[in-house]
Amino acid sequence: MKKQNAILLIHCEDKQGIVATVTEFLNSNNGNIVTLEQHVDHSQGMFCMRIEWELEKFLIPPDKIGDYFNTLIVPRYNMNWSLYFSGYKHKMAIFVSKMSHCLFDILARYKANEWNVEIPMIISNHKELEPVCEAFQIPFYYFPITAENKREMEEKEIELLRKHDIHLVVLARYMQVLSEDFVNQFPNKIINIHHSFLPAFPGAKPYHSAYQRGVKIIGATSHYVTSSLDEGPIIEQDVTRVSHDDSIDDFIQKGKDLEKIVLSRAISLHLQHKLLVYNNKTVVFD
Amino acid sequence: MKKQNAILLIHCEDKQGIVATVTEFLNSNNGNIVTLEQHVDHSQGMFCMRIEWELEKFLIPPDKIGDYFNTLIVPRYNMNWSLYFSGYKHKMAIFVSKMSHCLFDILARYKANEWNVEIPMIISNHKELEPVCEAFQIPFYYFPITAENKREMEEKEIELLRKHDIHLVVLARYMQVLSEDFVNQFPNKIINIHHSFLPAFPGAKPYHSAYQRGVKIIGATSHYVTSSLDEGPIIEQDVTRVSHDDSIDDFIQKGKDLEKIVLSRAISLHLQHKLLVYNNKTVVFD
Amino acid sequence: MKKQNAILLIHCEDKQGIVATVTEFLNSNNGNIVTLEQHVDHSQGMFCMRIEWELEKFLIPPDKIGDYFNTLIVPRYNMNWSLYFSGYKHKMAIFVSKMSHCLFDILARYKANEWNVEIPMIISNHKELEPVCEAFQIPFYYFPITAENKREMEEKEIELLRKHDIHLVVLARYMQVLSEDFVNQFPNKIINIHHSFLPAFPGAKPYHSAYQRGVKIIGATSHYVTSSLDEGPIIEQDVTRVSHDDSIDDFIQKGKDLEKIVLSRAISLHLQHKLLVYNNKTVVFD
Amino acid sequence: MKKQNAILLIHCEDKQGIVATVTEFLNSNNGNIVTLEQHVDHSQGMFCMRIEWELEKFLIPPDKIGDYFNTLIVPRYNMNWSLYFSGYKHKMAIFVSKMSHCLFDILARYKANEWNVEIPMIISNHKELEPVCEAFQIPFYYFPITAENKREMEEKEIELLRKHDIHLVVLARYMQVLSEDFVNQFPNKIINIHHSFLPAFPGAKPYHSAYQRGVKIIGATSHYVTSSLDEGPIIEQDVTRVSHDDSIDDFIQKGKDLEKIVLSRAISLHLQHKLLVYNNKTVVFD
Repeated sequence: MKKQNAILLIHCEDKQGIVATVTEFLNSNNGNIVTLEQHVDHSQGMFCMRIEWELEKFLIPPDKIGDYFNTLIVPRYNMNWSLYFSGYKHKMAIFVSKMSHCLFDILARYKANEWNVEIPMIISNHKELEPVCEAFQIPFYYFPITAENKREMEEKEIELLRKHDIHLVVLARYMQVLSEDFVNQFPNKIINIHHSFLPAFPGAKPYHSAYQRGVKIIGATSHYVTSSLDEGPIIEQDVTRVSHDDSIDDFIQKGKDLEKIVLSRAISLHLQHKLLVYNNKTVVFD
Repeated sequence: MKKQNAILLIHCEDKQGIVATVTEFLNSNNGNIVTLEQHVDHSQGMFCMRIEWELEKFLIPPDKIGDYFNTLIVPRYNMNWSLYFSGYKHKMAIFVSKMSHCLFDILARYKANEWNVEIPMIISNHKELEPVCEAFQIPFYYFPITAENKREMEEKEIELLRKHDIHLVVLARYMQVLSEDFVNQFPNKIINIHHSFLPAFPGAKPYHSAYQRGVKIIGATSHYVTSSLDEGPIIEQDVTRVSHDDSIDDFIQKGKDLEKIVLSRAISLHLQHKLLVYNNKTVVFD
Repeated sequence: MKKQNAILLIHCEDKQGIVATVTEFLNSNNGNIVTLEQHVDHSQGMFCMRIEWELEKFLIPPDKIGDYFNTLIVPRYNMNWSLYFSGYKHKMAIFVSKMSHCLFDILARYKANEWNVEIPMIISNHKELEPVCEAFQIPFYYFPITAENKREMEEKEIELLRKHDIHLVVLARYMQVLSEDFVNQFPNKIINIHHSFLPAFPGAKPYHSAYQRGVKIIGATSHYVTSSLDEGPIIEQDVTRVSHDDSIDDFIQKGKDLEKIVLSRAISLHLQHKLLVYNNKTVVFD
Repeated sequence: MKKQNAILLIHCEDKQGIVATVTEFLNSNNGNIVTLEQHVDHSQGMFCMRIEWELEKFLIPPDKIGDYFNTLIVPRYNMNWSLYFSGYKHKMAIFVSKMSHCLFDILARYKANEWNVEIPMIISNHKELEPVCEAFQIPFYYFPITAENKREMEEKEIELLRKHDIHLVVLARYMQVLSEDFVNQFPNKIINIHHSFLPAFPGAKPYHSAYQRGVKIIGATSHYVTSSLDEGPIIEQDVTRVSHDDSIDDFIQKGKDLEKIVLSRAISLHLQHKLLVYNNKTVVFD
């Protein structure tokens, strides 16, 4: 079994000495650094870092690391920071509608223990995928959202998410726009897959638009959901070639293989705390 | 040396029997088909075909093929058609501004005889690349276009293009928008390279916009120029990965390698008569 | 529902007039051609074609097409040919060992009706994936092959395949080499996925070898199985970037996403009769 | 103009505290770190780091940095290290034979000042590319190597390289194997482009072998030259799709576009001191 590590994500105004200060803090307390990645955004004067170290011989107990770091280091650089532990098991909820390709891809990884995650629920506005959930023995919740009941339904969904202490919501081709209220309750905790190479073709029916435009490459984009539709911080994108010979159905079919891989990559990065968000952009420490 | 072949590009309403009719016409006149590609656009009910055959034993002399085909076959299907000969040497003009990467890529292929083409002129609105033209011994024409003299300058450019019987105009990162008048005189004969993955980031400074948006992939798009800026039929696209660690300068640098290859691929397809345009889209017979 | 089409795959020595003859045969019998792709391998003097036409108004009844074609057309060009019907439902068997990613990918497509296929059995030399088969309600057959019982076990497997009239065997990361006897009974009917970019790293542990060599890109290759290990006709390949920062485990993890997609693409091409094999190479009519 | 930075490449046995020690050394001497990348090869217990800092306010003068670092830091961890300065202009020699595509790509970048480099000579075993060198006004040296005169010719080449203080030798499709003696005099200072996806198809005529094998993707590989042919540390690779429809000539043509880009990327990485070699593998700090 893997040893437990601590992971620190930091961003703050760029100043001289940050790396030296943080690494000295870890080193002097016997923390062996496993990975360190830093990024300076010179256009914004912003310093970002992800640092992971072994807890085995670290002198500060895990439950006090945050406190010590916050007291000893943070004030010197006015840091934004988050602390995670590699052994922690996330709770993840999946939202789906009728299409199964992303759901199956996620569940296959789940069953193969590819991720350190628990999936206590799958939520849908349709009933089509209930049998899949049953086959994988995951509770299925049905919320038949309409224009009229949206507010009420979303409140129940949020209540359910809260009750199960869900840390990550994955929209696996969920064909309902979440309300701003919903989104704002889970900042940088909702990942969506959009079936185009954003910012090209936002909104509905991107494959139809791509076909209409005659593009030679189609794409998929995973991003954190914000209140601006399809405009949240991009996590991962990928593309594949199409030709004049591909129909819209071919676009959709080829796109499915992109979507599921691009979504799963984004989930994977999130679960490993490799994503840092600022200015509506992601830093991917990969 | 390669034997001379004839190439026929056809598009018309899809009906039963077109392939049989055309191939029978060639076969009965002793034309050995080298390549045949057909495409049916079911959404438009449109039939497209590119067919290439050897002239060596073909019973109809090259200068009469068009006439015979037009009389015997075309009326049956109300065809749009063009006839080309593989041995024909195109005349190509290159428009540049200050950046040299696409120009060098084209000239390197020119010198290596990669294309069956003649380049009688390079036209620019700046003087920076004149030495490159001299090194490659290609006449350089300087048209310092301003808002005031644009009409007049373009007329002189068109006159020059006409005088030299230019068939293909390549905008190799030419940073001036051609007027509608200019464009309309060379339908499907002007190829541009746009430094983004269209339709994302049309217009000016696409790398800046891509950086701003935080995309994870950038692209380049070659297309025929129409009077709608960056909206002409797409010929070829390609992409490359970028990360948060890439500055705008890195985007530009990575993009250059895309641009030159994507532009040269489009030129190559055009010169081999592998492109058919309808409905503002290209069929690429590759 | 899609109309039933007939599909003809042909290869023979290249001669003048083949396309005209075949299309005239279809046309004169009222067969509307939907797609036609031809390929001439000039290095071998070999002509290949895939032609698909609508049966709706075709004058020759489906069960007599083969006979008529064989009598009227085949002898003129000494053709190798196969005839298929688009509505026909293939029977496909899957062989697995312990890894589930390819199996899940196939079953997800199966459940989503992505392919016109029936999967009457999953065969394994291990028990690990039996619960997956149960969840998807597909009969699981366990053949614990050892060096001693291999001949006997394979005979039982073949018997089972024959009994269920299996047309396609998919080795979905099946970690047992099939005997020459087995392979020879299913020529061009067994598809394997090899976890490297063949011909680099054939045989066992390709990711370890790739890591050792320090490659910057890894790949996966689907191919028809022949009696020469990892040397059968390649159907499809794809690759992904790796870096010095990726461990062997990272190679394996990234590779899994390649393997499942590359294998499923190969299955898809086979099921649509888009693959023609000669000279240990495939022609992919895509 | 860019400010001058110092760049330190380090590798040594992995131990706790290296990053803290090195960053503290820079920080306490007022060196502002611009980029820091570290890599731990857990399979070898090897620590690698590239660190770049501004010299502007750094208290140690550039010509004493190496001495101080060697005295104060190196012994603690038994480090292998190299120190570079970003403003330093490399001297690069190019070896070519008859093909021009890589040469043109390099020279185009040279003329556009893409690299901080000087090219005092182009060496060839053929005369074909002399006019290109003249057009770009770079001295051309002709060494018509034969089996008989190889030793003598190479000695003259080495003498010439030494006389001009050449730091990097680029084999831009140079079709002569360098002798072991030659190679050993320039460890990790000779970059070759091999026209295949190594380790597939080493040696002569890889495109012919790739065509013969029926691969669906071809590649190119840039690597440092060692005395084992095509087995040196891989710097960069890239690939492109081919199909059954591509002839060997098409493979060669598509391959050229790969080769020139992959070679230029490797040169670029080397010139920026982003490459660290150990165990016949590269760490690419990109």
